[in-house]
Amino acid sequence: GALSGLGLGLWRWQQAAQAAAEEDEDEKEEKELRQRFMAPPVSGLRELRRRRRELRSRMELLIMETQGEMCRALAALDPGAAFAVDTWERKEGGGGISCVLQDGEVFEKAGVNVSVVFGLLSEEAARQMQSRGKSLKAKDGKLPFCAMGVSCVIHPKNPHVPTMHFNYRYFEIEEADGTKQWWFGGGTDLTPTYLNEEDAIHFHKTLKEACDKHDLKLYPKYKKWCDDYFYIKHRGERRGIGGIFFDDVDSPSKEEVFQFVKSCAKAVVPCYIPIVKRHCHDSFTPEEKLWQQLRRGRYVEFNLIYDRGTKFGLLTPGSRIESILMSLPLTARWEYMHTPPKYSKEAEILEVLRNPKDWVH
Amino acid sequence: GALSGLGLGLWRWQQAAQAAAEEDEDEKEEKELRQRFMAPPVSGLRELRRRRRELRSRMELLIMETQGEMCRALAALDPGAAFAVDTWERKEGGGGISCVLQDGEVFEKAGVNVSVVFGLLSEEAARQMQSRGKSLKAKDGKLPFCAMGVSCVIHPKNPHVPTMHFNYRYFEIEEADGTKQWWFGGGTDLTPTYLNEEDAIHFHKTLKEACDKHDLKLYPKYKKWCDDYFYIKHRGERRGIGGIFFDDVDSPSKEEVFQFVKSCAKAVVPCYIPIVKRHCHDSFTPEEKLWQQLRRGRYVEFNLIYDRGTKFGLLTPGSRIESILMSLPLTARWEYMHTPPKYSKEAEILEVLRNPKDWVH
Repeated sequence: GALSGLGLGLWRWQQAAQAAAEEDEDEKEEKELRQRFMAPPVSGLRELRRRRRELRSRMELLIMETQGEMCRALAALDPGAAFAVDTWERKEGGGGISCVLQDGEVFEKAGVNVSVVFGLLSEEAARQMQSRGKSLKAKDGKLPFCAMGVSCVIHPKNPHVPTMHFNYRYFEIEEADGTKQWWFGGGTDLTPTYLNEEDAIHFHKTLKEACDKHDLKLYPKYKKWCDDYFYIKHRGERRGIGGIFFDDVDSPSKEEVFQFVKSCAKAVVPCYIPIVKRHCHDSFTPEEKLWQQLRRGRYVEFNLIYDRGTKFGLLTPGSRIESILMSLPLTARWEYMHTPPKYSKEAEILEVLRNPKDWVH
Repeated sequence: GALSGLGLGLWRWQQAAQAAAEEDEDEKEEKELRQRFMAPPVSGLRELRRRRRELRSRMELLIMETQGEMCRALAALDPGAAFAVDTWERKEGGGGISCVLQDGEVFEKAGVNVSVVFGLLSEEAARQMQSRGKSLKAKDGKLPFCAMGVSCVIHPKNPHVPTMHFNYRYFEIEEADGTKQWWFGGGTDLTPTYLNEEDAIHFHKTLKEACDKHDLKLYPKYKKWCDDYFYIKHRGERRGIGGIFFDDVDSPSKEEVFQFVKSCAKAVVPCYIPIVKRHCHDSFTPEEKLWQQLRRGRYVEFNLIYDRGTKFGLLTPGSRIESILMSLPLTARWEYMHTPPKYSKEAEILEVLRNPKDWVH
């Protein structure tokens, strides 16, 4: 009796000690993540840990991690400025974390946004979301969905530092019969005001290395997709010198696509930050600043007229307008009939925007 | 013989004298028009005179006249600046005259554009052109059309001088059986950076007077249409404090609608120019200039995302991009999460943009 009582007590004590140790471990991990993330994740750390094996959770941790890495790298280059961190909720389900640095020394406007939203999607909205337009069987015309992603646009002050954009996202849609459609999308691209071949090569090479680890066919395919996607049709120009872009990717397997997306996300800091460091103290003329402002105008044209993400966002009820339009530059300019002189530095970049080049072989 | 010869000679002389007098008259008229127009009309003065009774010709003369009036009125207020006048041809048929004043003392950017284009339209394009979407029977899927209009956007430098826009247009489409569909569209609207009630009342009153001459129902109807049309849905704001807007108007008769459009066109100078004169020397602070730039950003959002004319233009093959996008301001600004303080002058105009007011009764 007494012995079994003692045994039971010991067992209980061991149980409690193990639980305490696990909690310690969890707390340590939580503390660590809290330091690396800009804010608590939308789904909550505890919930993410509970379903840590699910891809949705791993993707949410990856986008949080990417946001943190980028914000820290940018903040280190612009010590006077600070990121405003806004967490927001979407009443239809989910929310997000927007980090914006505005009017700094180095950056005119830099935004890094995470969103994790879920709810019911109309068939029409689901079709728009997917460019392939494959049919989705809905229950009563509505589809339960989950969409998450990290997106970032950085507009520096100095016209010799290019604008950079990346976005990595994951979608899940549940059909009427319970089958789940899923796909990944994303990309990283560069928009210089002036062409610097060394920068262009470094940027594309870093992206190519991230792709090549997974499949040698990916970089050429996604490089071309990027040139095609960021096309300002009415101008006959691309928005920038490209990078990679992909959408609706659901093969070879969820795990493999996730690993590829992870490599891309890990490449955003190394492909861009060295370029910022190299040029953020370059001197520039008022004429160079003016050309940058005109190029910013083209950036606005692309984003408001053609960008699928922006259009989709503006049409989605309950979406956060300020986070969607954070991609717009602080300032932009439109001049009637502006044409740079032949053989100028301005004409040089236009040539590349009209006829995209291969930067790595 | 001699007498009849003399008679014939006299008759011939009279004929020649009459022809010469007519030619003199024509030349005088031509000279006069040449002074009032910014450039020779797209259809040519002779051709317009030949078919002077047709509505197409009268409308083309009206839009040319309106362009001239507006440009002269603007130039008189900004004597240092000069209009660049570009005439352009559309290889598919027709052309236009773009008059742009940029970076003046009073005006940051002012564009007054005339276009007269014709050719074959796809059924899809014709449907897009018409908001009512009534069916048009095409021969082999193509519809002969003629579209002409005058459009104008004026962005002043001083934040106390509002931006103004007007557009008056006429369309004709020929169906497979030879019947002609025709309609008029247009409007004049004001976009102030700060609210000035006196200006708002003057502007709306002048437009109401132009409408009331034709039908007392027109002003209330087209005032509401204007508030509904210039709505930036994702912001929950109108672009400005409105004016009038109408489209697809084809009743009571071609002549009556033309006379109404003519009254509207004749009102553009008196409804706007006095406001410019009243405020172009007002002093302003850097903060007021900044608020103007943020409002310019909203102007860009409306024009690139919602404006039917811009969208239609960008999608139409052979359209002149520089003339379409001349409506964009010289400079614009986007700040993340900008909210003016309560009870400020900035909040005052926002309130009116969110809840349109009646300015005249």
